[in-house]
Amino acid sequence: MYVLVTYDVSTTTPAGKRRLRHVAKACEDYGQRVQNSVFECKVDPAQLVAFKSRLLDIIEKETDSLRFYNLGANWHRRVEHHGANDGYDIDGPLIV
Amino acid sequence: MYVLVTYDVSTTTPAGKRRLRHVAKACEDYGQRVQNSVFECKVDPAQLVAFKSRLLDIIEKETDSLRFYNLGANWHRRVEHHGANDGYDIDGPLIV
Repeated sequence: MYVLVTYDVSTTTPAGKRRLRHVAKACEDYGQRVQNSVFECKVDPAQLVAFKSRLLDIIEKETDSLRFYNLGANWHRRVEHHGANDGYDIDGPLIV
Repeated sequence: MYVLVTYDVSTTTPAGKRRLRHVAKACEDYGQRVQNSVFECKVDPAQLVAFKSRLLDIIEKETDSLRFYNLGANWHRRVEHHGANDGYDIDGPLIV
C-alpha cells in the first residue's frame, strides 16, 4: 500500500529539532522524501503499524502534527508534480 | 473532488518569501491549511484547473516544488491525523 506522510514538528526548542531529525529518519527508513516534510512510502500493513508506532513515539502530540494519507493501489494516477525535485518513481528501478 | 496540495517554496530570497505568501493565499482561497505547507481542497474540475494555473504562475519551477494528490471521493477513510492542529472536516459545518 502507498501512504503519504506529512508532518509539522515544532522546532522552537533543541528537543523539537531532535524530534524533527528523528521523524525524518524514520520516514527515510520506510519511504522517499518528496518535499521537506512530505514522504511517500510503500509499506505492507505490518510495516505501516510499526512505522506509525515509531513516529507516534517520537512526536510531541501537543505541538507536532502528523498526517497519513492512504493513496491506495493506483496512486500514480493520483499524484501530479510541478517544479524542482521531481522525487522518483517508487516502483521504478533503484539507481545507486 | 478532494485534492491535497503540498509545496516547498525556496525562501532564500525576498522574492521567494513573497512567492510563499502568494502560494499560501491561493491555497486558502480553495481549501484549508492542515499543516504549514499542506492544504486539503474541495474543488470541482473547473476550479482545479484555475487553481493549478494560479499556483503555476506563482512558483519558480527551478527552485520550488508543488504536488497535487487527488484523494478521490471517499477521502475521509484515507486520512489519519495525530497531534496538534487537527484541522477540520472539510464537509463539516462552517463554524464562524
